Amino acid sequence: MAKIICAGLGPGDPDLISLRAARMIGAATQVAYFRKAGNSGQARSSVQGLLPAHVAEFAMEYPVTTELPAGSPAYDAALSTFYDDWADRLAALSGEVVVLCEGDPFFYGSFMHLYIRLRGRVEIEVIPGITGMSGCWTATGQPITWGDDVLTVLPGTLPEDALADHMRRADALVVMKTGRNLPKIRRALAAAGRLDAAWLVERGTMPGQRIAPLAELEPVDCPYFALVLVHGHGRRPGRAA
Amino acid sequence: MAKIICAGLGPGDPDLISLRAARMIGAATQVAYFRKAGNSGQARSSVQGLLPAHVAEFAMEYPVTTELPAGSPAYDAALSTFYDDWADRLAALSGEVVVLCEGDPFFYGSFMHLYIRLRGRVEIEVIPGITGMSGCWTATGQPITWGDDVLTVLPGTLPEDALADHMRRADALVVMKTGRNLPKIRRALAAAGRLDAAWLVERGTMPGQRIAPLAELEPVDCPYFALVLVHGHGRRPGRAA
Repeated sequence: MAKIICAGLGPGDPDLISLRAARMIGAATQVAYFRKAGNSGQARSSVQGLLPAHVAEFAMEYPVTTELPAGSPAYDAALSTFYDDWADRLAALSGEVVVLCEGDPFFYGSFMHLYIRLRGRVEIEVIPGITGMSGCWTATGQPITWGDDVLTVLPGTLPEDALADHMRRADALVVMKTGRNLPKIRRALAAAGRLDAAWLVERGTMPGQRIAPLAELEPVDCPYFALVLVHGHGRRPGRAA
Repeated sequence: MAKIICAGLGPGDPDLISLRAARMIGAATQVAYFRKAGNSGQARSSVQGLLPAHVAEFAMEYPVTTELPAGSPAYDAALSTFYDDWADRLAALSGEVVVLCEGDPFFYGSFMHLYIRLRGRVEIEVIPGITGMSGCWTATGQPITWGDDVLTVLPGTLPEDALADHMRRADALVVMKTGRNLPKIRRALAAAGRLDAAWLVERGTMPGQRIAPLAELEPVDCPYFALVLVHGHGRRPGRAA
C-alpha cells in the first residue's frame, strides 16, 4: 500500500523549496503532479534539477480548467471523477509516492481534494511550503503586514460586491485566482478606494517576474500565476519616512 | 559596507527552512537575530545544526516585550531607539550579515523595522519563509481554505468588537499574537459564533507541539508561539464526507 508524501514546492523558485521537501523529491522513486493537458506543468518543471533520473512519473491532467464555469454541475462532476480516480490509482501503488504541489498544499491547493479521499486509507504526510503570496509580497520589496494590520485573502472568483466589501474592511489584501477575473477585481478595488495602492505580481520569484501598479496596466487577461496585493501600513515604532 | 541577507526560517522545524536560506546560514560569517533578554531565542536555537562553528553572533535583545502596552509612547520610543541603533550597527559591519527571522520576514516580522531603516543605505536581500500559520494549519491535518473561501488574518491585539466583526465575515480565520489576548480572542469568537470550530495550535511543527479545540481549554494565558485557527469549508467538487 502506498505512502503519500505531499511536498509543498513554494512560490516557484526551486531554491525556495524546504530542506525536507527537497530531500523527499531527491530520493523519490515515484512522483505525481497536476497539470493542464498539453502543458509540461509548473510543478514538474520547477523540480527538474532535483528529481532522480529514473523516477516513475504520474501526470494528473485536469479534465477541465477554464472551459466550464468553476462550480457548475458539469465542472464539479468532471473534477470529482478525476479526483476519485487518481485517489484510487495512487492508493494502489506500492511504496512512497511524492505528490508535487505548488505553493503550500493546504492553502487552496489541488492536493486537498486527493487528501480528503485518501485520508484513513493510506499513510499521508504533508510538507508545508512557502505560499505564492509570500513569494509575491517579498518580490515587491515592501512588507505586507505591520503591527495591528488585518490581512484578508480573497479568491478573485467571488462576486464583485463581495470583493469590494471585503476590500473596504481589511488593511492588507491579497487577491488569488486572478486570470479572467482581473477586470472584475479591478472594478471592486476602485469601488473600495484601494485601486491606487494595488500591485499585480506575475510569475513571482520565477523567470519573467513582473511587478506593476495595477491601475497603470491595460485591463487585459493576465496569466494564471498572478496575484494582486495591497500592502498594509499599520503601527510602527518611530515610523521612518 | 554590509550586505544584509534576511533569512526567513519558517515555522520552527529546521527541516522546513528553504534551500536558499539554509545555504546562506551554512556559509555565514556573521549572523544577527532578535531575542527576548535572558532567553536563548527561538530563531537562534532553530539554526543550531546549520550555523558554522566560528560565526560572529549579534543578539538583538528587545528592550521591552510585554512590560509596556504595545503602541504606548514609552513602548514606541524604546523600540524605535532599539531599531535605529541596530540598523546603524548592522550597516557599519563589513561583508555579509545573515539576519535570522522566524516565519516569513515580511509578514508581521521584526526585521521589517530594520528593513525600512536600512533600505537605500545598504544592499538587502530578503528570503521568504514558510509562515507560522502554514506550519500550524498543516499540523492540524485539515486544509485551511477551499474554493471560494475568504481567509482573514487577525492580530489578537485588536479590540474585541473589531475581532468579532472580522470573525463573522470571513470563512477561514487565523488569529496571530495570542498570548495575553487569548481570553479576549475567545470571547470574540464566541460572539461571532465561531468558537466551536476554533483550534489552538501551540509550538506548531516544533517539539512540544499541542493542538486542541479552543473551547475545551481552560482560559489561561498561552505561550507566545500559539495561533488560533478556524478552517474554511468552501466549494469542493463531489465533496467527500
